Amino acid sequence: MAKKEKKGITVKKDENFSEWYTQVVERAKLADIRFGIQGFIVNMPFGFSIIRKIYEYLEEEVEEDNHEAFLFPNVVKEIDLKKEKEHAGFNPEVFWVSEVGDKKLEERFALRPTGEAQIYPMYSLWFRSYKDLPFKGYQSRISVFRAEKTTRPFIRGREFLFFETHDVFNTHNESLEQIKKDLEICNKTIRDKIKIPFLFFKRPSWDKFLGADNSFTPDTVLPDGKRTQLASTHDLGRNFSKAFGIRVENENEEEEFVWQTCFGPGISRIMASLISIHGDDKGLILPFDMAPIQIVIIPIIFSEKDNKPVLKYCVDIEKKLKEYKVKFDNSENSPGYKFNEWELKGVPIRIEVGPKETKDKKITIVLRTGEKKSIKLDSLLKEVEKSSKLIDKNIEDKANLYFKNKTKNAKSYDELKNIIENYKGFIKVPFCSVEKDGEKCANKLKEETAADVSGTLYPKEDKILKESKCIICNKKAKHIVYVAKSY
Amino acid sequence: MAKKEKKGITVKKDENFSEWYTQVVERAKLADIRFGIQGFIVNMPFGFSIIRKIYEYLEEEVEEDNHEAFLFPNVVKEIDLKKEKEHAGFNPEVFWVSEVGDKKLEERFALRPTGEAQIYPMYSLWFRSYKDLPFKGYQSRISVFRAEKTTRPFIRGREFLFFETHDVFNTHNESLEQIKKDLEICNKTIRDKIKIPFLFFKRPSWDKFLGADNSFTPDTVLPDGKRTQLASTHDLGRNFSKAFGIRVENENEEEEFVWQTCFGPGISRIMASLISIHGDDKGLILPFDMAPIQIVIIPIIFSEKDNKPVLKYCVDIEKKLKEYKVKFDNSENSPGYKFNEWELKGVPIRIEVGPKETKDKKITIVLRTGEKKSIKLDSLLKEVEKSSKLIDKNIEDKANLYFKNKTKNAKSYDELKNIIENYKGFIKVPFCSVEKDGEKCANKLKEETAADVSGTLYPKEDKILKESKCIICNKKAKHIVYVAKSY
Repeated sequence: MAKKEKKGITVKKDENFSEWYTQVVERAKLADIRFGIQGFIVNMPFGFSIIRKIYEYLEEEVEEDNHEAFLFPNVVKEIDLKKEKEHAGFNPEVFWVSEVGDKKLEERFALRPTGEAQIYPMYSLWFRSYKDLPFKGYQSRISVFRAEKTTRPFIRGREFLFFETHDVFNTHNESLEQIKKDLEICNKTIRDKIKIPFLFFKRPSWDKFLGADNSFTPDTVLPDGKRTQLASTHDLGRNFSKAFGIRVENENEEEEFVWQTCFGPGISRIMASLISIHGDDKGLILPFDMAPIQIVIIPIIFSEKDNKPVLKYCVDIEKKLKEYKVKFDNSENSPGYKFNEWELKGVPIRIEVGPKETKDKKITIVLRTGEKKSIKLDSLLKEVEKSSKLIDKNIEDKANLYFKNKTKNAKSYDELKNIIENYKGFIKVPFCSVEKDGEKCANKLKEETAADVSGTLYPKEDKILKESKCIICNKKAKHIVYVAKSY
Repeated sequence: MAKKEKKGITVKKDENFSEWYTQVVERAKLADIRFGIQGFIVNMPFGFSIIRKIYEYLEEEVEEDNHEAFLFPNVVKEIDLKKEKEHAGFNPEVFWVSEVGDKKLEERFALRPTGEAQIYPMYSLWFRSYKDLPFKGYQSRISVFRAEKTTRPFIRGREFLFFETHDVFNTHNESLEQIKKDLEICNKTIRDKIKIPFLFFKRPSWDKFLGADNSFTPDTVLPDGKRTQLASTHDLGRNFSKAFGIRVENENEEEEFVWQTCFGPGISRIMASLISIHGDDKGLILPFDMAPIQIVIIPIIFSEKDNKPVLKYCVDIEKKLKEYKVKFDNSENSPGYKFNEWELKGVPIRIEVGPKETKDKKITIVLRTGEKKSIKLDSLLKEVEKSSKLIDKNIEDKANLYFKNKTKNAKSYDELKNIIENYKGFIKVPFCSVEKDGEKCANKLKEETAADVSGTLYPKEDKILKESKCIICNKKAKHIVYVAKSY
């Protein structure tokens, strides 16, 4: 017989998160990292099915918000990339296509590190009048390419899965409204459907996207304690419209530069957070609607004579469940082996059927989140419906509890330093300023604790007491900020 | 006011197809060819909405046929590409990523010219036992990259939109069955939904994909008379499994190389054919289900006093149509301007509403395929339903008639040469052999007429008379083949 692959997770998530993560990605067959080019992974069917769901949620919401889908090439002209760099300081590690066949290309071009430099030159051609605006465009199921030094599947890749909106307005006010709508999209998708809790930050001025007037990010914390940015939305002001010459005629027939925002959820990062936050020592845990297999039916047969009636009963059950994604696991493996395999893959509902269940027209239902009960065949659909909701509620409650414990307060720098070492999460502290003049304190913090200032809560900042002092410089504190180590 | 872009098509499709095509692509805003890197185009929202529909049709059918979606990187290792080249003779114009930032890459890699060389090395790791098979995988909404010399939007690009299945079987018989299923997928999507007629050929041995034992292609003819390959499906035999070491243990615990097929509809080519075959002198014509805008409502107002009641009536109509993709064009442009614009974009149904219609609670419906009638508001939904079917039938009938006229017979080489010059389509001729020994005749044909042997019909080849002679060499003809000029 062919050699069996290693199955099951052999480390505890709490004890060795890094190894746990690697094992889940590999053994639940989410991605294959043996593609052979650093930072480029293969999204295997099981993992890609989950990723596609993330894309579908986002597509649905941005279309509801009147975005139109377009698709740009995977490449970008050097001259456009330079224009972005000069005006916005964007300077990634870019991959260059510089040869074709056996020849050097006359004009090399880059694999796109992000969309701005390829999209905005076209925007400068597409709009003529203020009546053409607002325009909201997006592209989904695309990749961006950056030569990151260290790579981990979904967390940091050289090709990573992307989604981006690029919106154009006549007024700054509309841009600011859009930022709030982008937050709402994050709420409806990442929080409500994917069930990843996050805080929505306005980033400090020294850590915003350099082409933006302000950057906003929903950030969560992975079990290793590092802050992970799940998306970003930027108030681009008129910085890019000036760099790329995106103008329209206003009502008075004068040419004006447009106002822009862009929004980019990091699909790979959301996937990484989904794996890390919901999963347990047995493997993946998935919200019911996101699971590639929602229900697995496992026959439990003790003797030859049970074989036929039990399998027939399983088929009957499978037929009743045709509106769900069901796997009837009729393989030769032992029930225990099957339990482990489908738990590893996060299948929300397991149905166990033995001779007793078959005789009594009953079914044993086991939820991935732990609950177990015996039900009547007649009530199957009702119980599945109930169970799917219960699972989602369990996942949500667990994630919220997890995240609630990820925020502590510190009133002084000493207190901060005392708790930061082994603490995994955000620390709320009073801070002098999130504008340029606060950067010195942030640098000191970073040097001495390896932690960053994530930003202030948005849209409703935490209230700060009048007498609060910055934990670093001891001057008057203007903000409560959230400090964390980050990816 | 901002300068108006050029609207409307200024040439007749029959008189200057090439210019007509260029104008439709540009003015219906399907693609923007000003991206600035040869052969890389921007899929604009209107065009991309149609392309997405093509993808959705294909995804639905291959999933119905038990394919699982995965996603591979956009790049491929040089060593894997070489392996494919050595064993299958595949030698495209490959783009190389050879620099990163300011440095040369230690190991350059290629933008994928096709999937085999990146997918099959992974397949060699994924399957162990005959029980793991069949495996049917696919990827959708992806690009492939080839440095084509001449490029035209959708017809031939350097980055073109792709979709590919890669199936693995224990037996050759299953492969042959899959080829027929792939044909059925083409029938259900390209023919039935997109309404592009085609002939399904088995390609002559000298013109098959070199890694394949046999290649099969649904081909159509564009109005310029050139044969266009809409997809290809290949019986790969065990050529690639041997090249890439894809083996499983059989029932007797012996290692065996697997049997493979792959199937790739050319999304861009299907788009080009949709534009070219259905369109008319006014612009695009789209099947109802594929249209980004299915119904446009145009108010026709003669005096100020009509304004309010007519617009209100339009809004009432729009509300009734909420299950459709509706545009209420309330812009300042003249009705005539609007008619032209939405005809150009192929909107299937136009609703015209003036003061008389408003008063009488009536609606004038004009179909993109020409029909016009006045209906009662009460019967709107029923009439739209009827009209959508009528439009599809009109498109289908017109396309079938067009395609029927694209096949002629020739009994001798002289006859063939006589009709080939100005004829736009296939010519059926008797031919000596579609195996290696027929290649000489094919080469002669190509040299003297610029036409190719497309292949023999599949699965049911045309019957040939016993006494038929090859139109080139005059030896006994074994097949009826279809000759055409090609892209």
